[in-house]
Amino acid sequence: MFETVTLALDWLGVVAFAVTGALVASRKEMDIVGFALLGTATGIGGGTLRDVLLGTPVFWVHQPAYLVTCVLVSALVFFTAHVPQSRYRAVLWLDAVGLALFAVAGAEKAALAGATGLVAVAMGVVTATFGGIIRDLLGGEIPVILSREIYASAALAGAATFVVLAALGAPREIGLGAGFAVGFMVRAAALRRGWSLPRYRPRPGAPRDRH
Amino acid sequence: MFETVTLALDWLGVVAFAVTGALVASRKEMDIVGFALLGTATGIGGGTLRDVLLGTPVFWVHQPAYLVTCVLVSALVFFTAHVPQSRYRAVLWLDAVGLALFAVAGAEKAALAGATGLVAVAMGVVTATFGGIIRDLLGGEIPVILSREIYASAALAGAATFVVLAALGAPREIGLGAGFAVGFMVRAAALRRGWSLPRYRPRPGAPRDRH
Amino acid sequence: MFETVTLALDWLGVVAFAVTGALVASRKEMDIVGFALLGTATGIGGGTLRDVLLGTPVFWVHQPAYLVTCVLVSALVFFTAHVPQSRYRAVLWLDAVGLALFAVAGAEKAALAGATGLVAVAMGVVTATFGGIIRDLLGGEIPVILSREIYASAALAGAATFVVLAALGAPREIGLGAGFAVGFMVRAAALRRGWSLPRYRPRPGAPRDRH
Repeated sequence: MFETVTLALDWLGVVAFAVTGALVASRKEMDIVGFALLGTATGIGGGTLRDVLLGTPVFWVHQPAYLVTCVLVSALVFFTAHVPQSRYRAVLWLDAVGLALFAVAGAEKAALAGATGLVAVAMGVVTATFGGIIRDLLGGEIPVILSREIYASAALAGAATFVVLAALGAPREIGLGAGFAVGFMVRAAALRRGWSLPRYRPRPGAPRDRH
Repeated sequence: MFETVTLALDWLGVVAFAVTGALVASRKEMDIVGFALLGTATGIGGGTLRDVLLGTPVFWVHQPAYLVTCVLVSALVFFTAHVPQSRYRAVLWLDAVGLALFAVAGAEKAALAGATGLVAVAMGVVTATFGGIIRDLLGGEIPVILSREIYASAALAGAATFVVLAALGAPREIGLGAGFAVGFMVRAAALRRGWSLPRYRPRPGAPRDRH
Repeated sequence: MFETVTLALDWLGVVAFAVTGALVASRKEMDIVGFALLGTATGIGGGTLRDVLLGTPVFWVHQPAYLVTCVLVSALVFFTAHVPQSRYRAVLWLDAVGLALFAVAGAEKAALAGATGLVAVAMGVVTATFGGIIRDLLGGEIPVILSREIYASAALAGAATFVVLAALGAPREIGLGAGFAVGFMVRAAALRRGWSLPRYRPRPGAPRDRH
C-alpha cells in the first residue's frame, strides 16, 4: 500500500507533465523526436533535479519504464493533439495536476531521505516547478512560473500542508491527499478566478529606474 | 586499445564542441575570457550532465587536461576565427562531428555504468545535445536542437546503432564506429539535403489555438 | 577561526546574491513568493552547482538556515526595494561583492575536496557566476555575464590569486583576503571605469557571415 500510493503519485505526475511538454511541442509544430524530447524532459525534469540535489540516485536511470512511458505519451499526443479545443488551456490544467502531485511527492521523497521540514518543502517546490521551467525554456514559451497568477505558491501550499500534517502525526495517505488537494485547489482557483498575490509596486513619485 | 578508443572519441568530441562554442563567442564579439567560458561549457557540458545523472564522478574534475584543452582551443579560435569563410557553417559541421562522437561515447559510458539499453540511448542523446543547448542559451542563439532539420534524431540513431550492435555481441570498435558513422551521416544528410522528419501540423479547419 | 572565516564568506555571498535576485524580482513586479524563489535561487545557485560537480553533498540540503536566510532577505527586499535610488546599480554592486566572495569560497571548497589548482579556479568561477546566470535567465534579464565590461574575468582573477597564494604557502586568511580584494577591485574598476578586455573583431574586408 505504502509503495503503491507513492508510485501512483509519481507516475501520474510524470504522465501529466509529459503531456504538457508534448502539447508545447505541438504548438511549435515539432517532429516526433522533438515531441519525445520535450515530453520526456518535462515529465522527468523536476524529479531529476530533486534527486541530484538530495544526492540520491536519479529515479529513472535504473527504471527505464519512466522513459518508455514519456516517449509513448508524447507519441500519442503527436497523433491526437488536434483534438483538444484549446491546447494551451489543456497545458495549464494538466500542469496544475502535475504541480500538485509533484509538490507532495517531492516533499515526501526529501523527508524520507532525511531532510528537515523546510528543505522538504523546498524540494516539493523544486520538483513541482522545474519540469515546467525546462519545458518553457526549451520550447521558447513565456515561463508559466513568471505568470501573474499564483503558481509556485500553490506548490508551496501543497508541500507545506503535507509536511505540517506529517509533523502532526497524521497518517501518510491523509497528508498526501490533503497536500495534493490544497495544491491543486489553490492553482485551480488561480486559473479560474485569476487569484494572485499582491505584487511589488514601485512607490509613486519614486525616481524611475534607469534600466 | 580499449581505453585508447574511448579516450580518443571523448577528446575529439570535446575539442569539436569547444571550437563551436568559441565560434559562437566570435559571432558575439566577446573577449578572450568569454571565448574560454563558452568554449569550455560547450566542450564539457554534455559529458558533465551525463555523469551527474549517472551518479559517477564528473569526468573533468579530476582530469584538468580537459579544461586546459578547452581553454587552449578557445584561445586559438580567438586569434583565427576570421579565417573560415562562414563561421556559422563551421559551427554546424563541427557540431555534427561532436554530436555523433558524444552519442556513442555517452551511450557506452552509461552501459559501462550498468544502465539498460534504453537508458544508454537516452544518455547518448543527452551527452550529444546538452553542450550545444548550453552554448546556444549562453550565446543567445536560436537553439540548434529546435532547428527544422534532423538533429537530436541523429544522436538517437547513432546511440541506438551502438547499443543494438553491442546487444548483438558485435565487437566494441565495430559498434562505436558504426554508431558514429550512422549518427554523422544522418546529421550530414540533414545539413546538406535538408532532411527532416514529418512535423506536427494543426488539422485544417480545427479551431485556432488562442495563444 | 578556520571555520568562521569560510562560513562568513559563504554567508555574506549568499546574502549579497539573494538581495540581487530579489531586486530583479522587484524590477519584474513579482509577488512575494516570486521574490523568495528568485532570491533563493540566486543566493544558493552557484554553490549548488559547485557541490553537484564536486560530488559533495549540496551545502544547504542539511543546513536549512541558508534557505531561511534567503527567504527572509527576499521578504525584506519586498518591503524596502523602493528605497535605493537605482535598483539596477544596487544589483550590479551587490553582485560584484557576491562574485568576489564566491570566487574565493568556491575555489577553497574545491581545493579542500582534493581538486587541483586549475579545477579549483574553474570551480571558483562557476560558484561566482552561476547564481547570476540563473537570476538573469529566470528574470528575463540580459545575462550580466555577457556584459561588455569585465565580469567572469574578475572571478577568475580572484580565484587564481587565492590558488596561487595557497600554492606558495601563504596563510589561508591572507589568500582568501587577497583573492577577494583582487576579484572585487577588478569588477569595481569595470563598473566604474568601464574596464574591458579586447574583444574579438571581424577582420575588415573579410566576407560577412551570412547569419
